Amino acid sequence: MTNDERAIREVINTWMRATAAGDLTRVLELMDDDVVFLGPGRPAMRGKQGFAHATKAAEGRHRIEGSADIQEVHIFGEWAYCWNQLTVRMTPLDGGAASERRGPVLSIFRKRPDGTWVLFRDANMLAPAGGA
Amino acid sequence: MTNDERAIREVINTWMRATAAGDLTRVLELMDDDVVFLGPGRPAMRGKQGFAHATKAAEGRHRIEGSADIQEVHIFGEWAYCWNQLTVRMTPLDGGAASERRGPVLSIFRKRPDGTWVLFRDANMLAPAGGA
Repeated sequence: MTNDERAIREVINTWMRATAAGDLTRVLELMDDDVVFLGPGRPAMRGKQGFAHATKAAEGRHRIEGSADIQEVHIFGEWAYCWNQLTVRMTPLDGGAASERRGPVLSIFRKRPDGTWVLFRDANMLAPAGGA
Repeated sequence: MTNDERAIREVINTWMRATAAGDLTRVLELMDDDVVFLGPGRPAMRGKQGFAHATKAAEGRHRIEGSADIQEVHIFGEWAYCWNQLTVRMTPLDGGAASERRGPVLSIFRKRPDGTWVLFRDANMLAPAGGA
């Protein structure tokens, strides 16, 4: 495994840990200012600020725990894609039933001039996996 | 626009035309042998043969017309990604009501040694858009 691949895997693992901890500041450090999040049945969510806004709007409602099963990381110089099978478990803080979403994510990463990798494009194909 | 970007746009347009014409042989020429198709709520569909098999299983049921609104093509040497807003209209050949699916597609393309571009990874985020 190259250093670049290791760095991208660490971005994904850090993202999961920071999300579980509710650490939005840390999550925002892992994405490009001009990131775009794509998903079914909703408009593209653009930019770090779009992500921050959506996350704050949902804040305090769920505990979110994700686990990523990385299928592939493919690096082209300063750019890379990653295909990841993701499971996200959302537990309402008010005591309701937890739910799970599962599915593939195809992401584009870029390497910044300082050598760190950040998320640039994200195609989220999670679907409800029934109660859990 | 570079020649590479023009070539990738032409792959997408050819794909749409060949699909509408039911020309599976032509569509198969536009993808890598080891292509992977990802989507919500279904396992990854792997390889040109997987695509051919699924297409033949659905053959003769619908006329499929797609239109692609390309948002972005980004090329890294022999590799590229494309983000595309796709609309697919399916008209049952038995005379039932047509339906539409719409949404983003994030695709990875690779350039073959002969200079042609082929689809390599495809993240399909189409969702039902109601009757049409």
